[in-house]
Amino acid sequence: MTPEDAIAEAAAAYSNWGRWGPDDVLGTVNFLDEAKRAAAARLIRLGVSFSLAQRFDMNGPQNGWRRRTNPVHTMLDTGLDAVHGDQGFPHGFGGADDVIAMPLQCSTQWDGLGHIFDHGRAWNGRPADKVVTGEGDLVTGIEHLAPFVAGRGVLLDVGRVIGGGELPDGFAITEEHLNATAEAHGVAVRCGDIVCVRTGRLARARREGWGDYAGGPAPGLSFTTAGWLHRTEIAAIATDTWGFEVRPNEFENAFQPLHQVVIPHIGLLVGEMWDLEALAAHCAGDCVHDFFLAAAPLPVTGAVGSPVNPLAIK
Amino acid sequence: MTPEDAIAEAAAAYSNWGRWGPDDVLGTVNFLDEAKRAAAARLIRLGVSFSLAQRFDMNGPQNGWRRRTNPVHTMLDTGLDAVHGDQGFPHGFGGADDVIAMPLQCSTQWDGLGHIFDHGRAWNGRPADKVVTGEGDLVTGIEHLAPFVAGRGVLLDVGRVIGGGELPDGFAITEEHLNATAEAHGVAVRCGDIVCVRTGRLARARREGWGDYAGGPAPGLSFTTAGWLHRTEIAAIATDTWGFEVRPNEFENAFQPLHQVVIPHIGLLVGEMWDLEALAAHCAGDCVHDFFLAAAPLPVTGAVGSPVNPLAIK
Amino acid sequence: MTPEDAIAEAAAAYSNWGRWGPDDVLGTVNFLDEAKRAAAARLIRLGVSFSLAQRFDMNGPQNGWRRRTNPVHTMLDTGLDAVHGDQGFPHGFGGADDVIAMPLQCSTQWDGLGHIFDHGRAWNGRPADKVVTGEGDLVTGIEHLAPFVAGRGVLLDVGRVIGGGELPDGFAITEEHLNATAEAHGVAVRCGDIVCVRTGRLARARREGWGDYAGGPAPGLSFTTAGWLHRTEIAAIATDTWGFEVRPNEFENAFQPLHQVVIPHIGLLVGEMWDLEALAAHCAGDCVHDFFLAAAPLPVTGAVGSPVNPLAIK
Amino acid sequence: MTPEDAIAEAAAAYSNWGRWGPDDVLGTVNFLDEAKRAAAARLIRLGVSFSLAQRFDMNGPQNGWRRRTNPVHTMLDTGLDAVHGDQGFPHGFGGADDVIAMPLQCSTQWDGLGHIFDHGRAWNGRPADKVVTGEGDLVTGIEHLAPFVAGRGVLLDVGRVIGGGELPDGFAITEEHLNATAEAHGVAVRCGDIVCVRTGRLARARREGWGDYAGGPAPGLSFTTAGWLHRTEIAAIATDTWGFEVRPNEFENAFQPLHQVVIPHIGLLVGEMWDLEALAAHCAGDCVHDFFLAAAPLPVTGAVGSPVNPLAIK
Repeated sequence: MTPEDAIAEAAAAYSNWGRWGPDDVLGTVNFLDEAKRAAAARLIRLGVSFSLAQRFDMNGPQNGWRRRTNPVHTMLDTGLDAVHGDQGFPHGFGGADDVIAMPLQCSTQWDGLGHIFDHGRAWNGRPADKVVTGEGDLVTGIEHLAPFVAGRGVLLDVGRVIGGGELPDGFAITEEHLNATAEAHGVAVRCGDIVCVRTGRLARARREGWGDYAGGPAPGLSFTTAGWLHRTEIAAIATDTWGFEVRPNEFENAFQPLHQVVIPHIGLLVGEMWDLEALAAHCAGDCVHDFFLAAAPLPVTGAVGSPVNPLAIK
Repeated sequence: MTPEDAIAEAAAAYSNWGRWGPDDVLGTVNFLDEAKRAAAARLIRLGVSFSLAQRFDMNGPQNGWRRRTNPVHTMLDTGLDAVHGDQGFPHGFGGADDVIAMPLQCSTQWDGLGHIFDHGRAWNGRPADKVVTGEGDLVTGIEHLAPFVAGRGVLLDVGRVIGGGELPDGFAITEEHLNATAEAHGVAVRCGDIVCVRTGRLARARREGWGDYAGGPAPGLSFTTAGWLHRTEIAAIATDTWGFEVRPNEFENAFQPLHQVVIPHIGLLVGEMWDLEALAAHCAGDCVHDFFLAAAPLPVTGAVGSPVNPLAIK
Repeated sequence: MTPEDAIAEAAAAYSNWGRWGPDDVLGTVNFLDEAKRAAAARLIRLGVSFSLAQRFDMNGPQNGWRRRTNPVHTMLDTGLDAVHGDQGFPHGFGGADDVIAMPLQCSTQWDGLGHIFDHGRAWNGRPADKVVTGEGDLVTGIEHLAPFVAGRGVLLDVGRVIGGGELPDGFAITEEHLNATAEAHGVAVRCGDIVCVRTGRLARARREGWGDYAGGPAPGLSFTTAGWLHRTEIAAIATDTWGFEVRPNEFENAFQPLHQVVIPHIGLLVGEMWDLEALAAHCAGDCVHDFFLAAAPLPVTGAVGSPVNPLAIK
Repeated sequence: MTPEDAIAEAAAAYSNWGRWGPDDVLGTVNFLDEAKRAAAARLIRLGVSFSLAQRFDMNGPQNGWRRRTNPVHTMLDTGLDAVHGDQGFPHGFGGADDVIAMPLQCSTQWDGLGHIFDHGRAWNGRPADKVVTGEGDLVTGIEHLAPFVAGRGVLLDVGRVIGGGELPDGFAITEEHLNATAEAHGVAVRCGDIVCVRTGRLARARREGWGDYAGGPAPGLSFTTAGWLHRTEIAAIATDTWGFEVRPNEFENAFQPLHQVVIPHIGLLVGEMWDLEALAAHCAGDCVHDFFLAAAPLPVTGAVGSPVNPLAIK
């Protein structure tokens, strides 16, 4: 079977098009309903919270590929201006202010439903060229997800369970690996969950330098997990890697074929470049791998992605 | 008493300098400990969640004052490129990608602890010029708050209780108004809370246009509430206005004197331009005005503010 | 005749498609050959030079229309950092550095050949969707003009000659006005010239505030000048207005119909928001209205416009 | 002598402080007066012109050092939007528009007079912290140079004459090398000139990749040329390297010591990352190494540097 046929077969087998009506803009976040969110809140027992975001600054992994830079943060006013300059404020008042310029997917982020297309089709079967124009995503912009991305999070620390800490680059995580990890953790993945898969790739980048973290070889989900991602009815998945799926991709000359199935066809919310290290250490310590997760995207109108600071609370 | 004396008196009376040690970078967020966060989680009963963020786009309130623009969102790749252009991806893969340039405080946001100074002093008594330089906030950058801003939220809908819906511009909300509102709601403000004060100013801007929303006349907290803000030991306060305190300010020739007390001296986390409309309507309906609130700032290294999409969950 | 028919008629009558071969990327700048540039140099007699650029800062005319902001200039390092901060340089070295974010056409600028299309056709008859994609102008990007835009400039101060100083908003400058002005100046417009038309609109904006300078009513060239613009074989035209042609446009429900003819069909280089005040005063003084003009666009790869600081040298 | 003493000695020996009065904002551009500009115009004989700018895009040399990125150019509207989207314009009108975000010194540029300080002093002896604040350069912003940077250009192709094509990294160009090159060319450097020194470093980067072009080893002017740069009374100097002076610098632990002398003390206008290749080839062909040079900075208010597209015209 050619790569294109394999993608088409998976797309057909796992499509959620129409599942939530023709006007749907939420995809699998529909699974995360109020009852599940309320149940997830009961996972907060200690009150301890973890930020799953990398820091947003120039020491990030981006290398300019497709005009993606690291975040550029600059100051409009500073404490130096307040003390030694002439800000023009009365009564001893001083202030600092700042701006940022960045690709929306340069660091810890969510892929919006308008981020990836398959043969010109966006989520729910819409023509990609009617959905995302120069004005942005006119239909499934990430602002539509603004209130909804909070629920049960489940950490699958495949790096620790299968890799003894970290998986090597090019390691394709299969359904079997996911199940074995969940079993080792004593946790079950359920409908509406936000699943966080730790590979250990970020830990290695921290230790050894970014290198090719952005786009280069990495462990990640196998193309063959498309069925699992569909069948489990999870609301979202996130990893500590640049691109969520294994790199190099498993097909010849392919580019992110699992994205091509899960975003436009499954309508799955995908998170990338999450920092799962502190959370994973805590989970390994108390053997509790589920938690409340609040990971609301910034509602940039028409955006096809968003930076996010996900909070995991146990 | 001159304005400068009044500010100095309040600063001295309500200072938290040293309260959490000389190295503190969290301010009043210290009040929001794990026990309080765990208790707050029990406020999630229905699982219904509200985004308290405005949408981030060019239809915002900014008018260029001090180089603040509205968010500029542009596309790097679109569905049009995927369908009609030549993206160079194999097997029918297409993608869209985008960037943003914006002041960190142009829309729904948190003020960082390095945002405001009093006579050259930043939070905890540090010299402002050693804290916030051209490189950003080297000490109290908003990234330090990344894991912590989730806990009990309390809505005080002063606009509805005192104003019959909306408060007029220039209306100074006093401690008495805050207490009367809480009493009317049947809710008590407690240590570690994130208090959301609705004035109705945003509702009016939505109806009548932005006008001078950014910096012009507005209802807001009276300078005289500094003691209440200190004594209640709340973790944070947020409003639906540009600048949280009443405008015009209550002193002659003053500029945001309450900021000058609460940020550098109390160490209070202040939120502005929050959209409390949907939440307020729900609270008015079920008479429940406390909820779980997750409002994690984006951890931009050294930032003195951050855009945020706060989630209120009941 | 309907507006659409009028535009089509002018487009057909004045088309330069194919005039410089199928691969042309320069349009009317082809008229400005080396001999003409050398001859133009002989107009430099005094050595006095004028910048025809507005200053690039937040005090500009942009109001957010179609995501156009004024230039946002921010500092990465300052003299305050050098003196009071800790830049980390040895031996007393200090530095300042800065960044800018701006629309390429937010202030004094050139329209590139990829800026305007007519019924899906770009300059030289190319399909617009094959020329300008999400990656920019793949064919006629403004970088192609980089070495060429220097030659004879001619000022036609229509504001002074016809308007007694300034033309009123909505005033449509006709061929007769242009000819009368040239005659009054004692100057002839020739092939390869860069013609600068002063209306006085910028002077009025300086005096009375920007108001609707960006997109609102303004004097400017009449649609009926399309033939003159074609027949004179000028290399470029520039005005002191936002949009070069008269506003409101002369057709019902039209939007910049003269652009629609001159850019895609004539291939004319169009400059906007030029500051002709100082030059015009000098020309009125010495009665010399031609000069050497160097107005090289910034070679931003694939750009459909460019900021420019045009130098007029007499 | 310590590096710091050597810098101090050169600073004292070659200072132009006060030479053009206490309010000067032009530095050595004062040398380029109208008579010299008029004389320079007579060097235009052929009318052939060369752009000395690199292209501004993501394929540039920047690597993130001190938050410097390559230019990020993004589209607001495209030909795809015009043809397949819904731009909302009448009568077949379509348009493309774009924005840029970039450090002002990321590619071919001028250093402004506020770019470098020596022991807290800026050009003309002013305190650096009163000159360049968070608002930019309040005194010597590059906008002041807007009308003046056009005059006689002289190419010194040291790479060709001394290096047989290209100088190796770390090669320090001395006064002797400059004089020998001028003599070989049969050209004399005179007061008010804009001197362009070609090392061949850019040609090598084009051939071999950017590598450490931005900040790494490079040929460049020796610290010992400070006297020559002062004595010759040139208006400006520009090179094809990142930093104009030799790298590594000639003193232990130094950082750009020649900058520290020539910008704040001599008031010299310095250009970097110029593309002198095509011009140099032409000059080698016709043995004429002087020309008219128009290199007007973009008048960004308060900027300490500016991108530029210099035109050399022979």
